[in-house]
Amino acid sequence: MPTSPVWGSRSKTRRMVLDLIRAAGTISRVELATSSGLTPPTISDVVRDLILEGLVVEAGRGASTGGKPPTLLRLNPAARYSVGVLLERNACVIVVIDLTGRQVGRTSFHGTAQMPPEQALPFLADRVTALLDTAGVARDRVLGIGLVSHGPQDRPAGRLLTPQPTGTWYGYPVGPRLAEILGVPVLLDNDAAAAAIGEYWLGAVDPRSTYGCLYMSTGIGGGVVVAGEVYRGSSSNSVEIGHISVDVHGDECPCGNRGCLENYAGPAVVVRQALAIPALAGRLALDPDGTDFLTGFTRIAAAANGGDTQARHLIDQSARYLGHAAVTITALFDLDTIVLAGPSFAVAGPIYRTRLQQEVNRRSFARRAHPVRVVLSVSGSDAAAIGGAVLVLQSELAGNRPTEPRGTVASRATISR
Amino acid sequence: MPTSPVWGSRSKTRRMVLDLIRAAGTISRVELATSSGLTPPTISDVVRDLILEGLVVEAGRGASTGGKPPTLLRLNPAARYSVGVLLERNACVIVVIDLTGRQVGRTSFHGTAQMPPEQALPFLADRVTALLDTAGVARDRVLGIGLVSHGPQDRPAGRLLTPQPTGTWYGYPVGPRLAEILGVPVLLDNDAAAAAIGEYWLGAVDPRSTYGCLYMSTGIGGGVVVAGEVYRGSSSNSVEIGHISVDVHGDECPCGNRGCLENYAGPAVVVRQALAIPALAGRLALDPDGTDFLTGFTRIAAAANGGDTQARHLIDQSARYLGHAAVTITALFDLDTIVLAGPSFAVAGPIYRTRLQQEVNRRSFARRAHPVRVVLSVSGSDAAAIGGAVLVLQSELAGNRPTEPRGTVASRATISR
Repeated sequence: MPTSPVWGSRSKTRRMVLDLIRAAGTISRVELATSSGLTPPTISDVVRDLILEGLVVEAGRGASTGGKPPTLLRLNPAARYSVGVLLERNACVIVVIDLTGRQVGRTSFHGTAQMPPEQALPFLADRVTALLDTAGVARDRVLGIGLVSHGPQDRPAGRLLTPQPTGTWYGYPVGPRLAEILGVPVLLDNDAAAAAIGEYWLGAVDPRSTYGCLYMSTGIGGGVVVAGEVYRGSSSNSVEIGHISVDVHGDECPCGNRGCLENYAGPAVVVRQALAIPALAGRLALDPDGTDFLTGFTRIAAAANGGDTQARHLIDQSARYLGHAAVTITALFDLDTIVLAGPSFAVAGPIYRTRLQQEVNRRSFARRAHPVRVVLSVSGSDAAAIGGAVLVLQSELAGNRPTEPRGTVASRATISR
Repeated sequence: MPTSPVWGSRSKTRRMVLDLIRAAGTISRVELATSSGLTPPTISDVVRDLILEGLVVEAGRGASTGGKPPTLLRLNPAARYSVGVLLERNACVIVVIDLTGRQVGRTSFHGTAQMPPEQALPFLADRVTALLDTAGVARDRVLGIGLVSHGPQDRPAGRLLTPQPTGTWYGYPVGPRLAEILGVPVLLDNDAAAAAIGEYWLGAVDPRSTYGCLYMSTGIGGGVVVAGEVYRGSSSNSVEIGHISVDVHGDECPCGNRGCLENYAGPAVVVRQALAIPALAGRLALDPDGTDFLTGFTRIAAAANGGDTQARHLIDQSARYLGHAAVTITALFDLDTIVLAGPSFAVAGPIYRTRLQQEVNRRSFARRAHPVRVVLSVSGSDAAAIGGAVLVLQSELAGNRPTEPRGTVASRATISR
């Protein structure tokens, strides 16, 4: 673990000031000092550097509180950009965001993950380059790429430790290889952790909150954020909620565990259950040989929303298991908020939200100490890709030397260059 | 959340320096600067204050590395003391430790929790006073009392939010009331969180470790420590592993959840199962009307150790459920170590340890990224009481003003005065 050269390093200070300006939109130096607890001279120093680097600009005058009206500061959106890439079994999503987190470009396509990585990564790199060109973003303003996928991962080495999407990806250095092709830093991270931090950055949760994100795409993942930092654990393979057991007597999962949540509540299971009901499968034109479970799941979710009793029963059953796991994660992490993110909640979100809220109201261990709110993500389907780009901003803007005080939750992002 | 007046406050610096001296035993100022990353002038300032306060003393000279041999520093064990009080359904344990964490006094007794708190707390205070007298500890050297019990709790208010030990304790301000009687600060905390941090303080785990503690007494609790700080969550009611569900179809628990681990693996259940086997119950002279499950459980565990097949089967079954929950907590917190602490592991620990190690080896999600070690606590039965005293040292030695940077895992202890 790196130790900071000065306890409470400049890097951490810088990150806090940037985060306060970002969250406020516009803010004066005096307000920055008040909000941060830093001394006015320290604020002046940090702000001067940020202005010199072009990250922050002055933005007129605020209201006077007696004397001269204070100069306001804001982020310069076009100063830097960040790219988020979500690599999934079936689909790939690329987003470009500016320094304030606003999306300035997006594309998605199928098939990448079915190629071997030697072929897929150059293809992916071309798509990134094309998207940056379309969005008119100069390469030297791109801080890096946040490449997010499901776990387990060897994050420092930029390798996936799972034979998915296909066996050829297992152990392949996806982070370093993509960095080499594109010539920009690449950060490999977990899709659900990315989705979780994206919510914070986009202002959707209270900055002091301890919240969990349940991320459902074709699989189910999770992330926990404590006061604006991702909970990492010993190797950044934390909060793998899709592979906690909901049934001690359940079947073995390829992950090695038994009775995993994903095999009771995940989209693939819901689609399989729907295919076993011929009337429903026919009505929704489900493809019995399809591997793109998301399309099938989306149809079932839409039918459930529309009042189809059989479809609704299947979604309810999935929501019941997910509620069960939500109670577990709440009891262990003592969460005050649960955010539902990812493509599978984009359609069926309200049904899940209602069910999970009922379950945590009734069953959460600390309900006498505080309530737990269940909310839908502000980022919808693209939460993980946006979060991947946010992780790069968070990491790169803090300065080039990774120096964190001991005891912070998040280890600094590991970047492949 | 409090904000520090200077980012990277003196309080945090002081705590780190004390922690480094404690962990090292003896250390020079130069080594302190190297290990902490602090500048030599900062180290000199902090050490000067600690010597003036009597907390640190000079302890001869170290080996020369060329020039003048450096002066070594160590904690002054008798400078301050701390008291840990474990309040349980059946038993109460009090320990006194010195500044280095060494135990200088201990007592235990039954019956306190069956009294109403108005009667129990003065009784408890008398026992604390008597123990301090016996140990020859002056009252003005006592930093405070760490009162630990099971959750849920309202920690800032020093209240238990559970009708256990008996209904009269629910909501009673145990922290403030005990502080008032004894005239020293009282910190209310979770027994399992205390046991977890005690392991760190006593040097039993790697300081950089992310580890979990499973604490089994009459109930089952948990605590997670990240780089020397307790994971707190939104209200310090975290890691309630005894009340996560191991069976979605299980019975309702008084806690509100369904299929809770405690009702499958806890000592009360093992005793109940043993009582249903007349030959076993007779052989071990189990009391069918007893409420002191620990005594019965200890007999069953001892018999299992001694090769009694029926007893062994019951302990194995409990260990199987506990292993299941250990896999869950490992998948969520990405632990590298699991510590088994508390009286129920003091006898049957080796059987549980072996079983849990097998389960996490086979089933932990991140097993390809790193191994997970299962170890027995160095503190045995008294882990929670010792940990309670350690939490007071950790909290009080950092200085009187609670000032923590944003983003650290642990909120500072809340002390009733």
